[in-house]
Amino acid sequence: MENIICKGFKAAGVISGLKKKQAMDLGLIYSEVPANAAGVFTRNLVKAAPVVLDLERIKSGRCQAVIVNSGNANCCTGEQGMEDAIAMTRFTAEALDIPESLVCVASTGVIGQPMPIHKVEAAMPELVSCLSKDGMADLSKAIMTTDLVPKMLSLKGEIRGKAFFISAVAKGSGMIRPDMATMLCFVCTDLEVPIDILQKNLSNAADFSFNRITVDGDTSTNDTVLILANGMSGAVVKTDEDAAVFQTMLDEILLGLAKMMVKDGEGANKLVEVEVKGALSDLDARIVADTIAHSNLVKTALFGEDANWGRIIAAAGRAGVYADPAKMDIYFNDVMMCKNGMTCGDEAEAQATKVLKTPEFTISLDLKTGHGKASVFTCDFSIDYVKINADYRS
Amino acid sequence: MENIICKGFKAAGVISGLKKKQAMDLGLIYSEVPANAAGVFTRNLVKAAPVVLDLERIKSGRCQAVIVNSGNANCCTGEQGMEDAIAMTRFTAEALDIPESLVCVASTGVIGQPMPIHKVEAAMPELVSCLSKDGMADLSKAIMTTDLVPKMLSLKGEIRGKAFFISAVAKGSGMIRPDMATMLCFVCTDLEVPIDILQKNLSNAADFSFNRITVDGDTSTNDTVLILANGMSGAVVKTDEDAAVFQTMLDEILLGLAKMMVKDGEGANKLVEVEVKGALSDLDARIVADTIAHSNLVKTALFGEDANWGRIIAAAGRAGVYADPAKMDIYFNDVMMCKNGMTCGDEAEAQATKVLKTPEFTISLDLKTGHGKASVFTCDFSIDYVKINADYRS
Repeated sequence: MENIICKGFKAAGVISGLKKKQAMDLGLIYSEVPANAAGVFTRNLVKAAPVVLDLERIKSGRCQAVIVNSGNANCCTGEQGMEDAIAMTRFTAEALDIPESLVCVASTGVIGQPMPIHKVEAAMPELVSCLSKDGMADLSKAIMTTDLVPKMLSLKGEIRGKAFFISAVAKGSGMIRPDMATMLCFVCTDLEVPIDILQKNLSNAADFSFNRITVDGDTSTNDTVLILANGMSGAVVKTDEDAAVFQTMLDEILLGLAKMMVKDGEGANKLVEVEVKGALSDLDARIVADTIAHSNLVKTALFGEDANWGRIIAAAGRAGVYADPAKMDIYFNDVMMCKNGMTCGDEAEAQATKVLKTPEFTISLDLKTGHGKASVFTCDFSIDYVKINADYRS
Repeated sequence: MENIICKGFKAAGVISGLKKKQAMDLGLIYSEVPANAAGVFTRNLVKAAPVVLDLERIKSGRCQAVIVNSGNANCCTGEQGMEDAIAMTRFTAEALDIPESLVCVASTGVIGQPMPIHKVEAAMPELVSCLSKDGMADLSKAIMTTDLVPKMLSLKGEIRGKAFFISAVAKGSGMIRPDMATMLCFVCTDLEVPIDILQKNLSNAADFSFNRITVDGDTSTNDTVLILANGMSGAVVKTDEDAAVFQTMLDEILLGLAKMMVKDGEGANKLVEVEVKGALSDLDARIVADTIAHSNLVKTALFGEDANWGRIIAAAGRAGVYADPAKMDIYFNDVMMCKNGMTCGDEAEAQATKVLKTPEFTISLDLKTGHGKASVFTCDFSIDYVKINADYRS
């Protein structure tokens, strides 16, 4: 795993006892100087206390530290939950000697359980003492819940001869669907980016990545993406062109993390791109792609490595947008399985079955009615998904 | 199983070889006289050939026979598929010596495979010779696909001193969601009902039953509900009051069959009513109920007998209608688990867990913002669902 960390940033992860099993569950990001900051949050009406608090704090466009825990979502916890979220930022501010208003907080885990705030308080001295330039790897572990692997990506860029880094961690493998996933993502960069551009870049990149993935069609109460840009590299976004350079890199990092989430989807064995083209509009294409990507029947067929294109066409047919079933073509990678709504025969099926046995492939549906297109990422729906989610709290 | 059959109706089921395993797969309903008829069909854009044909024929409001097969959906089969659907009605019309225009057809099974029409033709003489007054039981078996149990219900009614019967069969256990299920249902009655009232009664009853159930959120290309009313009992629907009597009975039969479908849902172990009240409108309540009933996370928790109300509140929060999470109360039967968006504690959890261990119960969500209410039926999401659907075609 890469372990580049941006200039002026430190991170840490420790065991505080919030998780049932002894494992890292408390993390911290700290910038030596206050950074420009932006955030994207869940659109679920049920918002965890940390999300409500961050939504307020991020309005200033400034942030210097983020404290994160796994093991408890601090959601549906009432006034006490908000007090606990504020307390987490207060502990952090006091330990780092920075203003409380410059601290954001994120939580992930079980909903509806009181936050054992004393465990967080007790772990603060160790957490702060563990802060290090290459602490992002530990942070990526401290935010995991049902994730099997930590997720971290870094990129090096250059603007007008000045080098800068972007480094990001993310978690999420269940309760994942567009708008958005049960996921947390924290991005650090030592690039200087004006606050309004930072927010726009982040929102664009989230749309291009986290809002295009689905594992199980459920959305969370705690989804949070935060970016801190502290400018300590000396590289500065000044022009639209600079912003575009940054956007491209941010898209690449967030899409990379999003794909890692789907690959690590609860019980998932396959990363599948669902590509729809020929729709009347891009939005129509997106709706059809989402419907296919969410279909339990499509996803169980993927698990069974069964090239059951009938389920794909049936999902497209119930998506609620105009399409003519008698025109639809379906491909698994470059193998045409269905032409004009009808089977391409046994030989095509045999070829498609080979594609389905690979761990990553693309399902393409051409509606042949317009020029709209979209693609989303999904995974198969396995026996292990059910096992994981039947037993999650026990 | 009850085996009442209405006056003047005969039915049959035989083995034609359409299913891989030797089992009944071809069925027939026949009325001695042409009956008034009505139908409700899938709203999926992808409609199987039999659905397209029935939609046309049912316009006359008259029908005398219905031929049904399982093992092949005759869907995504192009012009040949339509020729085959017409051929099935022609074989039937010739064998029974009735007009082809009075024959409807329905198919269920795998999508996208050519219909082995010669098997249907070869089985016709046996099918017709098996027609009998108590053949509905065989018919109920001939339409099964992944169903574990045949589904049949009958009721006796009376209008102005004249007795009549309603007898219905249905199939469906996967690809089930509101609007509508992957299901077939055929209703016979010896009551006389004017065509327009018959259609209205049937549509109402379908909304009250099949459009309120979900197994897996997928909808089919072949959904068909047909009713034939031949009037041979001498009982006649004349007044609004008569129509209401008939509506109540039809609602009861179709809801009964719908619940049997959910109970027999692929891999299902539990029949769960999701009741939402206190919404701003009935429609809002319905949207929230549907979102909860479709949530894979809620359904896997039901399988795990885990009273994870956090997943219920999170599903409600993403339903897209107005609600205040801080007002929400959640009950499992009469056990309050969540009050004003917060846990009711360990004792409530222990009680709720007992409820979850029973095979049938109600989850109630009170939004406390208005007077809208709705209820739908769902089942748990089990390991067997995945097994069944991963292997369906193999």
